[in-house]
Amino acid sequence: MIRPQKQIAEAGLSAKRVLERCEALARLSELPGGLTRVYLSPEQRAANDLVLGWMREAGMSARLDAIGNCVGRYEGEQPGLPCLMLGSHLDTVRDAGKYDGMLGVVTAIECVHVLNSAGKRLPFAIEVVGFADEEGVRFGSTLLGSRAVAGTFRQETLDAVDRDGVSLREALRGFGLDGARVGEAAYRRGEVLAYGELHIEQGPVLEAEGLAVGVVTAINGATRLAVEIGGTAGHAGTVPMNLRQDALAAAAECVLAVERRCSSVAELVGTVGKLETLPGAVNVIPGKVRFTIDLRSPRDAERISAVSEVTAVMQAIADRRGVALTVTKTHEGGVASCAPWLMEQIGAAIAAERIAVRNLPSGAGHDGMAMIGLCDIGMLFVRCAKGISHNPAEAISAADAEIGARIFLRFIENFQPKARA
Amino acid sequence: MIRPQKQIAEAGLSAKRVLERCEALARLSELPGGLTRVYLSPEQRAANDLVLGWMREAGMSARLDAIGNCVGRYEGEQPGLPCLMLGSHLDTVRDAGKYDGMLGVVTAIECVHVLNSAGKRLPFAIEVVGFADEEGVRFGSTLLGSRAVAGTFRQETLDAVDRDGVSLREALRGFGLDGARVGEAAYRRGEVLAYGELHIEQGPVLEAEGLAVGVVTAINGATRLAVEIGGTAGHAGTVPMNLRQDALAAAAECVLAVERRCSSVAELVGTVGKLETLPGAVNVIPGKVRFTIDLRSPRDAERISAVSEVTAVMQAIADRRGVALTVTKTHEGGVASCAPWLMEQIGAAIAAERIAVRNLPSGAGHDGMAMIGLCDIGMLFVRCAKGISHNPAEAISAADAEIGARIFLRFIENFQPKARA
Repeated sequence: MIRPQKQIAEAGLSAKRVLERCEALARLSELPGGLTRVYLSPEQRAANDLVLGWMREAGMSARLDAIGNCVGRYEGEQPGLPCLMLGSHLDTVRDAGKYDGMLGVVTAIECVHVLNSAGKRLPFAIEVVGFADEEGVRFGSTLLGSRAVAGTFRQETLDAVDRDGVSLREALRGFGLDGARVGEAAYRRGEVLAYGELHIEQGPVLEAEGLAVGVVTAINGATRLAVEIGGTAGHAGTVPMNLRQDALAAAAECVLAVERRCSSVAELVGTVGKLETLPGAVNVIPGKVRFTIDLRSPRDAERISAVSEVTAVMQAIADRRGVALTVTKTHEGGVASCAPWLMEQIGAAIAAERIAVRNLPSGAGHDGMAMIGLCDIGMLFVRCAKGISHNPAEAISAADAEIGARIFLRFIENFQPKARA
Repeated sequence: MIRPQKQIAEAGLSAKRVLERCEALARLSELPGGLTRVYLSPEQRAANDLVLGWMREAGMSARLDAIGNCVGRYEGEQPGLPCLMLGSHLDTVRDAGKYDGMLGVVTAIECVHVLNSAGKRLPFAIEVVGFADEEGVRFGSTLLGSRAVAGTFRQETLDAVDRDGVSLREALRGFGLDGARVGEAAYRRGEVLAYGELHIEQGPVLEAEGLAVGVVTAINGATRLAVEIGGTAGHAGTVPMNLRQDALAAAAECVLAVERRCSSVAELVGTVGKLETLPGAVNVIPGKVRFTIDLRSPRDAERISAVSEVTAVMQAIADRRGVALTVTKTHEGGVASCAPWLMEQIGAAIAAERIAVRNLPSGAGHDGMAMIGLCDIGMLFVRCAKGISHNPAEAISAADAEIGARIFLRFIENFQPKARA
C-alpha cells in the first residue's frame, strides 16, 4: 500500500536551524529563567517579528492576520491556487517547554525554505500559520487563533478577561488589532485543501516503542470547567471549626473527586491545574476559591459522563458544607478524527524513511481541533523525552528533529489533494 | 472588690471621631473597593502621616520608630516618667475589615485627646503605638512592630522576602529605615509600666451574651507552617492518571487532614489560608504547590501535639504519592496570659459603667503576644457583629465604640502601676 515517493528536495534542510530557531523563540519569555509567552503579550509581538522574518527569508509573503496569527504563503505553480495549510502555535503554557507548538511552525518554514532554495513550485500553494493562541492561558479559552482561521471564532469571546481584568477586545486593540474584524482571518472551504501539523508527542508512547515519529489517528475530546466556591472568609483564630464555611476545604474535596473519578476509567484524564484562594492570607479562612478542571478522553461519551458526574459530586460536597458552587464550561471539544487519506499520505512518507508506521491518538489538544471545521486534518508526531511536556524539561533529539522535518517535507512534496467523491 | 473610681474627664470624648478616623484609615488601601494595607507599603506611609498628625493634635510628641511604628508620647506630671503603653496595629490582612487593629490605635489617641483637652496630667506618661506589622501578611512573619518595641525582633527576619522577592531589609531601606538599626525601637523594662490594648473581639462570644465589652484572660498560642509540595508538572492531556505526581492532589489531602485533626479537639483551630499552584495553568498538572497552615489553641500542649501529628500525616500522604514535602515553621508563639492585676483594673472600669464583667480568651493573636516579653499586658475586647473579622463585613456599633472608649479612658485615668512585690 506504500505509494511511490518522488525524490525530495531535501538538500539544504537544516535540523540545526530548526532547533536554533526553537531556542531563539524560547528566549522570548514573560519572566527570565523560564518560558512563558501568552497571547497578545509583548513577548508574542517579538516572536511574531522573528517568525514573519523567517517566513520571508524562506520565500513566502508573510502577514499578521486579524487575530494575530503569523501567516506565510508560498505560491504554487501559478498564483492563487488553493493551499495545503501547515502550522502549529506560537503561544505557550506557563513555564513551558521549547518545542510544544514552535517545532511545528519552525519545521514547516524550514520545509518551504528547502523548496524555495531549489526553486521548486508545487501544484498547490503552501501556507504556514503560527497560531497566536492555542493554549488558552491568558483568556481561559483555547484555540483562538485556529478558530479564527476556521471561521468558528465566537464573538462573545471578545468579552473574556484575563487575570488583570483586561478583555480580549481591549488586548487586541492594544496589539493594534480590531475585535470587530476578527472574521477577516477566516478562510473559505475551497481555499484550503488540508491542514497538516507536525508536533511533539507530549506523551510516552513513541519513546517506549523506539520510534522517532508516528501518525495521529485522532485528537482526544476535552471539556474545561471554571469552578468557583463561595464560602465565608473569617479570622483563622476565632471561628470554631464547626461554624466554618471554608471554601478551600470544599475545593480540596472537589480536587480529590476529580482525581478519583478519572482514575477509574482507562485513558480518561482529569486535572485541576490552577487554583487560587481569596483573600489568600495565612490567617484568614478562605472565603472564595476558584479553580479549573480539564477532562479528556478518546471517547466522547466517557468524557461527557465524567463531566456530569464530577459536577454532581461537587454539588453534593458544596451542599453538605453550606458553600456556594458555580460551574462554568469554558471549553468543550469532541474527539477530532484525522482524515484517513491524510493519515495514509503521512504514513507513506514515514515508510519511505524505512520507519515502522505507528498510528496513535493524541491525548493533548491541537489546532487541528478547530481546523477540522474548515478542512480535513492530519498530524505527524515526533518523539519527545520521557513524554514530558508543558514543562521546562521538554526535550527532543536533534536526530528526531531532522527525521521529522524530512518526513514532513516528503509529505508536502508528495501531497495529493483528496480525490473528489 | 470594685475599687472606687475617680470621676473621669470624659467631656469631649467623641466616638464619632473614632469611627470617622477608622473610615479615613480604611480608604488607604492597595486596591480600591476593599482594604489591604501591608507593612512598608505606600498606603502604610499615608496611614502613618494621618496617625502621627492625630497624635500631635491630641497633644503628644510623635515619631516614626526604627521599624516603622507610629509612637506618640503624652508626658505625665513631670517629663520623663515611665509610661503606660497603649496601642494596636495599623496593618491589615488582605480584604480586611476597618476595625481590627485600627480601632485600638484611634481610641487610645482619642483618650489622650480628652486628657489633653482637660489639661490633665497623670502620675505616669502615656505612650500610644500604632504597630506597623502585626498580621505578617507581607513577610509571613507576624508581630514585627511589637517585637521590635519589646526588644525581641530577630535579625534573621531581615532576610525574609515578600512575594515579589523583596527582602525586609530592602523594604525598610525603601521606606527610609535601616535594618541594622531596628534595635533602637526597643524599650527597657523599667520604661513601660504595662501594655494595654483595646481590640474588637473578632469572635461571637460577647454578641451571644449581649455584652458590649469583655476582659481578655489570655491570647491563644499559635503555630504557622509554610508547606511546599514538589510533584512533577506535565501535560494535562497526555500523562495517565496512574503515572502522575500531582502536587495539588497531594496538597488537597493535606488541607483535609488539617481540617479533620483540628475538628476533633474543642477550641483547637487549623486553617489553610493561602495556597498557590505552580505553574498554575488549566492544562498543566501542578508540579509544585505552596500553602500555609495556621494552628491555634488555648492550650499549648494540644497545639504542639496537633502540629506534630499533622506534619506526620502530611509526610505519609507525600510518601504514598511519591511527592516531596517541605515543612517550615514560620511562627510559633505560646499562650500569652494577661496579668491578673491589669485584668482587675480593666474589670473595675467596666463595672463602673454598670456592665457585667466577662472574662474570655482571645482566639486571635495580638501585639500583646510580643509585648509580654517587655511588660505585663491587659486587653479590653469590644463586641463585633456576628464574630466576623478579617473580612470587609467586620462591623461594630457606634454605641459600642463609645462604651469601649469610655471604659478604656476610665482604665487609663485610674491606672495604678503594679505594687512592687
